[in-house]
Amino acid sequence: MKLTAYTALQGASIVVALGERGHVALLTDGDDEHLFIPGGRQEPGEDPEACARREAREEAGVAAASWTHLGTYTIAPSGTARVSLYLARGLTLGPQELTDTEADYKVQWWPLDDAITAAVEGRFHLPAGPLALLLAQRIVSQH
Amino acid sequence: MKLTAYTALQGASIVVALGERGHVALLTDGDDEHLFIPGGRQEPGEDPEACARREAREEAGVAAASWTHLGTYTIAPSGTARVSLYLARGLTLGPQELTDTEADYKVQWWPLDDAITAAVEGRFHLPAGPLALLLAQRIVSQH
Repeated sequence: MKLTAYTALQGASIVVALGERGHVALLTDGDDEHLFIPGGRQEPGEDPEACARREAREEAGVAAASWTHLGTYTIAPSGTARVSLYLARGLTLGPQELTDTEADYKVQWWPLDDAITAAVEGRFHLPAGPLALLLAQRIVSQH
Repeated sequence: MKLTAYTALQGASIVVALGERGHVALLTDGDDEHLFIPGGRQEPGEDPEACARREAREEAGVAAASWTHLGTYTIAPSGTARVSLYLARGLTLGPQELTDTEADYKVQWWPLDDAITAAVEGRFHLPAGPLALLLAQRIVSQH
């Protein structure tokens, strides 16, 4: 589910799913030209990384062997809920498992640098996704 | 004023104020160890860049000759208000002009890379400040 659909009370997780060729999974919703990365709210009792694993599988059809925590930030200035950012590597691809509200989510695989360029050009609504992409690039370029 | 004090209805601007030696203005509020960059909500009729110029002057005592728009993002998933990110260069330093609620704001000048490391280590509450720092670094490293 897109982070825009969250309430202020729920924690959330978002995922930069980075494949072996340096491409990342970006999502679109129907005709909306905005991009977002897989993610969604934590279910009751679910920890942030478990949420990230579930959302990556459901929304992008991605399982991953390696998970790196990129940081945790307050979602909204007026609230206390936090969003945890993850980098997922060692991907295994399968089918999406979409809910009714996510039925028009399409996965696109973008070179990481192009995804960041799209963010710079204003194609993401919220700041957390672009921040996660830049933090992921920082890690990839250091190793 | 810290972005955490905003309502969901007000637009806001935040500023990476980058000095000639590559240092950026970071703020602390009293004993709180969290860091933030200058910024605040737009006053009625004020456009995003004018807000950025005013907040940089008030909170960090900084005027700048060069302003670069780094992007505009939705502040909170549940709202429509947007925060505009700016890079300010060609700085002239003067005194802070703090309101009562900002009385304990202290300016620290950090090397940009160290500010980003502090962000990675979790010393910022909201994602927009770290995103602005990383976007500023991207611009600086390309020129």
